[in-house]
Amino acid sequence: MTTITVAVAGASGYAGGEVLRLLLSHPQVRIGALTAASSAGTALGAHQPHLVPLADRVLQPTTAETLAGHDVVFLGLPHGQSGAIAAELGDDVLVIDCGADHRLRSADDWTEFYGGEHAGTWPYGLPELIVGAGHQRDALGGVDRIAVPGCNVTAITLGIQPAVAAGLVEATDLVAVLANGYSGAGKAPKPHLMASEGLGAASPYGVGGTHRHVPEIMQNLRLAGADEVTISFTPTLVPMARGILATTTARLAAGVDLEAVRAAYRAAYDDEPFVHLLPEGQWPTTAATLGANTAQIQVAIDRRVGRLVVVSAIDNLVKGTAGGAIQSMNLALGLPETTGLSTIGTAP
Amino acid sequence: MTTITVAVAGASGYAGGEVLRLLLSHPQVRIGALTAASSAGTALGAHQPHLVPLADRVLQPTTAETLAGHDVVFLGLPHGQSGAIAAELGDDVLVIDCGADHRLRSADDWTEFYGGEHAGTWPYGLPELIVGAGHQRDALGGVDRIAVPGCNVTAITLGIQPAVAAGLVEATDLVAVLANGYSGAGKAPKPHLMASEGLGAASPYGVGGTHRHVPEIMQNLRLAGADEVTISFTPTLVPMARGILATTTARLAAGVDLEAVRAAYRAAYDDEPFVHLLPEGQWPTTAATLGANTAQIQVAIDRRVGRLVVVSAIDNLVKGTAGGAIQSMNLALGLPETTGLSTIGTAP
Amino acid sequence: MTTITVAVAGASGYAGGEVLRLLLSHPQVRIGALTAASSAGTALGAHQPHLVPLADRVLQPTTAETLAGHDVVFLGLPHGQSGAIAAELGDDVLVIDCGADHRLRSADDWTEFYGGEHAGTWPYGLPELIVGAGHQRDALGGVDRIAVPGCNVTAITLGIQPAVAAGLVEATDLVAVLANGYSGAGKAPKPHLMASEGLGAASPYGVGGTHRHVPEIMQNLRLAGADEVTISFTPTLVPMARGILATTTARLAAGVDLEAVRAAYRAAYDDEPFVHLLPEGQWPTTAATLGANTAQIQVAIDRRVGRLVVVSAIDNLVKGTAGGAIQSMNLALGLPETTGLSTIGTAP
Amino acid sequence: MTTITVAVAGASGYAGGEVLRLLLSHPQVRIGALTAASSAGTALGAHQPHLVPLADRVLQPTTAETLAGHDVVFLGLPHGQSGAIAAELGDDVLVIDCGADHRLRSADDWTEFYGGEHAGTWPYGLPELIVGAGHQRDALGGVDRIAVPGCNVTAITLGIQPAVAAGLVEATDLVAVLANGYSGAGKAPKPHLMASEGLGAASPYGVGGTHRHVPEIMQNLRLAGADEVTISFTPTLVPMARGILATTTARLAAGVDLEAVRAAYRAAYDDEPFVHLLPEGQWPTTAATLGANTAQIQVAIDRRVGRLVVVSAIDNLVKGTAGGAIQSMNLALGLPETTGLSTIGTAP
Repeated sequence: MTTITVAVAGASGYAGGEVLRLLLSHPQVRIGALTAASSAGTALGAHQPHLVPLADRVLQPTTAETLAGHDVVFLGLPHGQSGAIAAELGDDVLVIDCGADHRLRSADDWTEFYGGEHAGTWPYGLPELIVGAGHQRDALGGVDRIAVPGCNVTAITLGIQPAVAAGLVEATDLVAVLANGYSGAGKAPKPHLMASEGLGAASPYGVGGTHRHVPEIMQNLRLAGADEVTISFTPTLVPMARGILATTTARLAAGVDLEAVRAAYRAAYDDEPFVHLLPEGQWPTTAATLGANTAQIQVAIDRRVGRLVVVSAIDNLVKGTAGGAIQSMNLALGLPETTGLSTIGTAP
Repeated sequence: MTTITVAVAGASGYAGGEVLRLLLSHPQVRIGALTAASSAGTALGAHQPHLVPLADRVLQPTTAETLAGHDVVFLGLPHGQSGAIAAELGDDVLVIDCGADHRLRSADDWTEFYGGEHAGTWPYGLPELIVGAGHQRDALGGVDRIAVPGCNVTAITLGIQPAVAAGLVEATDLVAVLANGYSGAGKAPKPHLMASEGLGAASPYGVGGTHRHVPEIMQNLRLAGADEVTISFTPTLVPMARGILATTTARLAAGVDLEAVRAAYRAAYDDEPFVHLLPEGQWPTTAATLGANTAQIQVAIDRRVGRLVVVSAIDNLVKGTAGGAIQSMNLALGLPETTGLSTIGTAP
Repeated sequence: MTTITVAVAGASGYAGGEVLRLLLSHPQVRIGALTAASSAGTALGAHQPHLVPLADRVLQPTTAETLAGHDVVFLGLPHGQSGAIAAELGDDVLVIDCGADHRLRSADDWTEFYGGEHAGTWPYGLPELIVGAGHQRDALGGVDRIAVPGCNVTAITLGIQPAVAAGLVEATDLVAVLANGYSGAGKAPKPHLMASEGLGAASPYGVGGTHRHVPEIMQNLRLAGADEVTISFTPTLVPMARGILATTTARLAAGVDLEAVRAAYRAAYDDEPFVHLLPEGQWPTTAATLGANTAQIQVAIDRRVGRLVVVSAIDNLVKGTAGGAIQSMNLALGLPETTGLSTIGTAP
Repeated sequence: MTTITVAVAGASGYAGGEVLRLLLSHPQVRIGALTAASSAGTALGAHQPHLVPLADRVLQPTTAETLAGHDVVFLGLPHGQSGAIAAELGDDVLVIDCGADHRLRSADDWTEFYGGEHAGTWPYGLPELIVGAGHQRDALGGVDRIAVPGCNVTAITLGIQPAVAAGLVEATDLVAVLANGYSGAGKAPKPHLMASEGLGAASPYGVGGTHRHVPEIMQNLRLAGADEVTISFTPTLVPMARGILATTTARLAAGVDLEAVRAAYRAAYDDEPFVHLLPEGQWPTTAATLGANTAQIQVAIDRRVGRLVVVSAIDNLVKGTAGGAIQSMNLALGLPETTGLSTIGTAP
């Protein structure tokens, strides 16, 4: 077995820490440089006490020099910083950006939703994304750049794309409301992310359509087959550290019944190693996905309303970020897609 | 000031306990008999240790005899039991049912959603409900029976009714997704309500349209002015003891802008003591309503999607149950509507 | 009834917010100036959305000018700032300091545990503190300065002082371990106080005897009758917004049995309005004290070990801070001690 | 590599589920029969939705017949049931009891603390337990029965035994207070274990010395070298699903300083793969151990009090139950002790 050397930039953050947690179980990876910004010079154990085998590793500054010389570099950086560092790394390095900079294909969308100039589009790291008659995984072999999808985008795309691709719903009237754990908001201290504020409370954020995840969802569902996509998207913070529970509803096309819906989801996901349609009567819980690279999905038809209701659960840091990133890395490097990734959650 | 004597049936449960918590601050109430089923004979303090002034009260069995002789009787009973006991109490007693038995006007709806025979319709205890040109409070003066609304119903109705009543949205394509605290599921131990299962997890329940709260929402919004109502309704359990955060979206009527929406909400609620439209830019959090008889509401327009998004937050046990019940009691007895009720939440 | 005008400095913080929450239910108080540091000029509703009646109040800067002209001024300021502002207010104003600056009698202790110069000692605001044959409340009538005790100190002192005062335990071998909610750590954002870090986790802080609350506990228990006090004190953060559960153990004096212990606690607390010895077999839970000015206490004897185990529960923001402060204010002003304070918790 | 076939009795419970979660990552294990009591006949996925690879496995009844024919049988049964079923399995099967039945060496202790007749003593599955000059792991090679320690016992023993074994503290005055997650209380629904009751609350249980874990702690520390052991032991429930944070204090022997203590802990644990003394200044958090077979330990000396304070953190279901059980299984079967076990926690 070839050994792959990997560097992680932003190793003191949540995305970087989760990449490391998972890489420690990857049989072909040797973990190289770990870098950070203000934490450079300190031991990783002070920031990520759960990563016991790496506790004594000293963080280096995030520069092209410290990151050079590895086969793969994961970037867990504030948005806007990935492009410059990737440019210095050359195309013999696989650079995997856990941030948003290179997800969108449309520079106009970028400027509208994020502001500033678009850093360019990289191959999109959602292997299960339905693209025409195939999947996004078909486009990931041998690439040297990967843009990791947003976590909310992953939850919603996996939840609704089989229905969209099969023409069972109208993609022009989607409504998604999400219950989100706090780690999705990152590790930088902010008043509304304090434990005192979050414990025992639920509150929305980014309401009303300007959320940056919206154009990415639209981009995905158009690839999956929708002519046009409109989606109302409301994330809410609830008192858990990890997890996304996405409830997505869509108006049913005429004559569609539950059997047709389940058949479409089975066709889409029965061969997927990480996306699971639950048996009828069982509903997803984020607890079942904690720490695992899985999405759990269930569907229902609300006959009175003429709507499909899909509930999907993921761990935002795993299938929503670091696990999906490693799955894409495996594909880019020609490894079996599931190498080093687990479907087993940690519950209760 | 007249003193009102009150009995509470089901005093060991969550609804009964919350009625008592609030009544202890009501200046005209004297708390009389407290009754329970299997807990009869034990002290209230063993079941409700937070109700210090009543800790030594011994629970009596729930019978017409123990409940008789009070001005007001609150019922916090399993569904199906309120009708019989109310029949024995006579119409000189104000009976307030915190359960579902008498909420629906349509016996057919009852049979379809709850099964069994309908126990009859009682005056509906949501004072702020818009009914034609007036409010439901106009119908509550002097009544001797009150059906307390469901907590999810209250959150959604208060959230969307101003837009429905003003014709700003199409009531035929409503979608509501709720984050719910566990106390809404009652005090009876069940596997999925255990702390081990709930801590760190989000999961849906009652997905797909057959939820018993749906016909009650439809009934309310028709009273508020909708010709026809269809609503997709998905509650989800999140790790908090109390609170409902309801995200309700509806397709906007042509030409409606945010100013029109805010004007309608201000017109509807500026004079309401317990329902508050937040300033622009501030979003509801359930934490702000904990223990208080308030609803906090915010609205946004998602221009791309053509939808109104309303987020409403309540404490399911207060504005969603016991507080609303006492507010209706005040109206029935001719007291000022706000007597003994607080708008001040307990946060953080 | 006389009306008392009250100003609150630090109104955007947790202590200031809780003082306001409770004052809103005080029948004789009119709330005057609300001040803050960096938040001056903004509306209180943006910081304390649960304080509905004060939502539109604009915060003024914290200066002697804005605070002057009130009967009472509560200070919820960073430590080190109370002395200067109090000096400017004059002795016709009752100044109540929720911070630590004036709690300790010993300037040496201050310098050792806090550093810097001692700002002087103010009358200590723990009315139930046993002082010789009387109580600290006896010393609070008519005072113009009050130092509010620390929240952990309150929990431990109320828990163990009856046994110490009655000579039932050796005060030289006390061990206290506390489970603490996050609001006790204040509202300033810090990495270890983030929701992501705190949810699902327990961790200690300030281990090993240098905690600033230790000399204050020692001071209290010496007043209660101990010749000498040594206490091992370990607070731990657990995932709740409010609450302290203190487990305090002490070696029993020879021949002491449970009956003697319960008798001493009954003698100490049966007449106290806010401190409750629970019936045998019932243990405190912080949930029962949420929002209430109560302490719940239970005792056990561990016969094998020869130790008394006392568990006490309080709400750190109420009996541990703002409630105790108002109780002391009542005493200083000659009002009934319980005015405006509730014993009723908000549970579940 | 030899393949080991394993059956799990009580597979629908928390202990059984965690054994399975970990065994799924064990490279030499093939999972055979899964059994349950009332859940027999149902699919495992309905009870343990996180164990995706086993979702379709049907639970069989727990009998000697269904469990026979495996190399190893794990028992996660209500206490009192292990002895009978083990007797039927024969001594060519390694039987590992996650319950309490066979932990104690003294039949008198059993009868006093548990009641009923003692089922006999099995080799004790805490490999790191210091026994004279060696460790308990030395006694586990080739055994056919293993009694898995209690989770609280593991946390306290690992925390304090180096100090006891080295004679640095007096074992006759130990005080331990624990913050416990709810999964330690098992999966059977009980009123005080409901999410509504547990969220936002801390409360003690089993206070006062009669807790069943006490004689087991005493037994361990006597093996580690104490002449006599007395320990005050108070567990408290806090709002987390998993985790134990144990604060254990002991009076220091004369002349012992921090350097001596750290030296003793380093000597005891530097070669242990799963027990980690943290660097000075870093304190354990249960979050760092979630899902991992690790204990994190930190020590401090409280000079004023003359006490050592040790804080130890484990995941009650892993190092406290299932992970320790598999570690012992590895030793019994002659496999490397760490096979299939991870030191990497899942955080945040």
